[in-house]
Amino acid sequence: MSLILPELNDIISAHSRIKDFIHKTPVLTSTLINEITGAELFFKCENFQKIGAFKYRGATNAILCLDDEAKSKGVATHSSGNHAQALALAAKINGIEATIVMPDNSPSVKINAVRDYKGNVVLCKPTLEARETTLEQIVNEKGCTVIHPYNNFNVICGQGTSAIELLNDYSDLDIVIAPVGGGGLLSGTATAVKGINKNIKVIAAEPEGANDAFLSFKKGEIVSSINPKTICDGLLTSLCDLTFEVIKNRVDEIITVKEDPIKFAMKLIWQRLKIVIEPSSAVTLAVILENKEKFAGKKIGLILSGGNIDFEKFVW
Amino acid sequence: MSLILPELNDIISAHSRIKDFIHKTPVLTSTLINEITGAELFFKCENFQKIGAFKYRGATNAILCLDDEAKSKGVATHSSGNHAQALALAAKINGIEATIVMPDNSPSVKINAVRDYKGNVVLCKPTLEARETTLEQIVNEKGCTVIHPYNNFNVICGQGTSAIELLNDYSDLDIVIAPVGGGGLLSGTATAVKGINKNIKVIAAEPEGANDAFLSFKKGEIVSSINPKTICDGLLTSLCDLTFEVIKNRVDEIITVKEDPIKFAMKLIWQRLKIVIEPSSAVTLAVILENKEKFAGKKIGLILSGGNIDFEKFVW
Repeated sequence: MSLILPELNDIISAHSRIKDFIHKTPVLTSTLINEITGAELFFKCENFQKIGAFKYRGATNAILCLDDEAKSKGVATHSSGNHAQALALAAKINGIEATIVMPDNSPSVKINAVRDYKGNVVLCKPTLEARETTLEQIVNEKGCTVIHPYNNFNVICGQGTSAIELLNDYSDLDIVIAPVGGGGLLSGTATAVKGINKNIKVIAAEPEGANDAFLSFKKGEIVSSINPKTICDGLLTSLCDLTFEVIKNRVDEIITVKEDPIKFAMKLIWQRLKIVIEPSSAVTLAVILENKEKFAGKKIGLILSGGNIDFEKFVW
Repeated sequence: MSLILPELNDIISAHSRIKDFIHKTPVLTSTLINEITGAELFFKCENFQKIGAFKYRGATNAILCLDDEAKSKGVATHSSGNHAQALALAAKINGIEATIVMPDNSPSVKINAVRDYKGNVVLCKPTLEARETTLEQIVNEKGCTVIHPYNNFNVICGQGTSAIELLNDYSDLDIVIAPVGGGGLLSGTATAVKGINKNIKVIAAEPEGANDAFLSFKKGEIVSSINPKTICDGLLTSLCDLTFEVIKNRVDEIITVKEDPIKFAMKLIWQRLKIVIEPSSAVTLAVILENKEKFAGKKIGLILSGGNIDFEKFVW
């Protein structure tokens, strides 16, 4: 079965669909970080998005694309991260039932966050098999629609709307950098950016300790993430067929970085922009700091994916 | 000698004078924090001001008010905190020399920050006497103008401009809360708010461990801060004659809070607003959280004073 890839028009439609439900996030700049990098950086702050991450865009678009019958039957997913909260809140706001399968070793703060958004939490054993089986049972029982966190056409279109806003504000960028985990944000970003101006480079930033997208991109086929080790807890997942197909065709380069530069970049953003971002966001700036000559003099947009971090546990 | 107090018109003039040099800082809101407090809160984010704190407003106004001769001779102060950086940067941007007397046990990060802004740093022994003597010597030698961090008419007018912006955006507030240390921000805020609408209450928030302003307000005369103990390192200083006179006349109430609620409030703001603020800013929200009944149903503006914190050293 050949895949249907999202195009710029799909992302523009998604933006019209969701724009009254989401925050138009700000773009911040820092004279000092520009001096340090020798480039001109524009930080698109999805940490200020609802639920604290870009995931709310995709979840909202996926829900608004459902027909009335599907809406009446609700949505479901398995996730212990930002997608769980995003889907629960997007469903609640639209008066739809959401069931979230979560591993029973999830931190209670994450389970409670989903419950705060009125999501039904179903706990299961902490294995991928248990998560998938439990989700299947729920779907069989309720007839609800599964919304995958990233390998979903409408989710990808929603995630691409952040880049649309960025380029609406700053059309003359040379490069846009986004982090890559499962590839939802990256494939949406690449589709939006290349659709608007194919001369703008799209670069993915990935932790070296979870470099499956880098390896997949090089090999031309999906290499799964095995035992990834990184503080970027949002970037542990592997690409899937749809996100990989988009990335293969529309991303110019994937660059990996080590953990220390990611921490350094995160600290620099906290200190200078005075915003809280999660490590997965900082990988974008880390790529620039580690490759200054490559990026010198360029105007670069960086998608800061989110700001959900347990800073009581985080050690600098 | 009777003191001349600043009035609303002075603050409006200060705002016209400095507005092209400062950031108009954003006002943020949080549905969740509103739910927790039962009030409607508007956070005026001076952590996004240049040098990361409101101090840049006052320093800029003081410098722009100098005549040409005074400008040619430069400015000086003693400070190891945000005022040092604020004065150095405001001077640099206006092509003026700034000399900052700092105790020789100041953290190197603070000394370097002043030097980064091209301020002349003069180190002295870490006593108030040494600071004052050293400053006096410099003034005698250079003929420069001393800019006190808060007990200065033009500095107070500059600090009040944040409240002007807040009320321009949200004119129907019931209450404005600002932290109090030396009283520069508070006296400027009170002057602006009461000048615009005397029905809006002005409340000061102070750590219980540094409650000299609370005691002074109660007693009707300045009670000095002796061995203050609080994580709010920006609120350790005592009131001076000018700030006290304004506060006595224009502030409705000073409320103190313990350290744990300040930490809790700071965490809530980091987690929910996704911004980095310093403890001295969090004391405003802590006052509301500790007195929910008093504030229920009110529309409240909170001045978040700054975001300069050494979060590697900060322990939750």
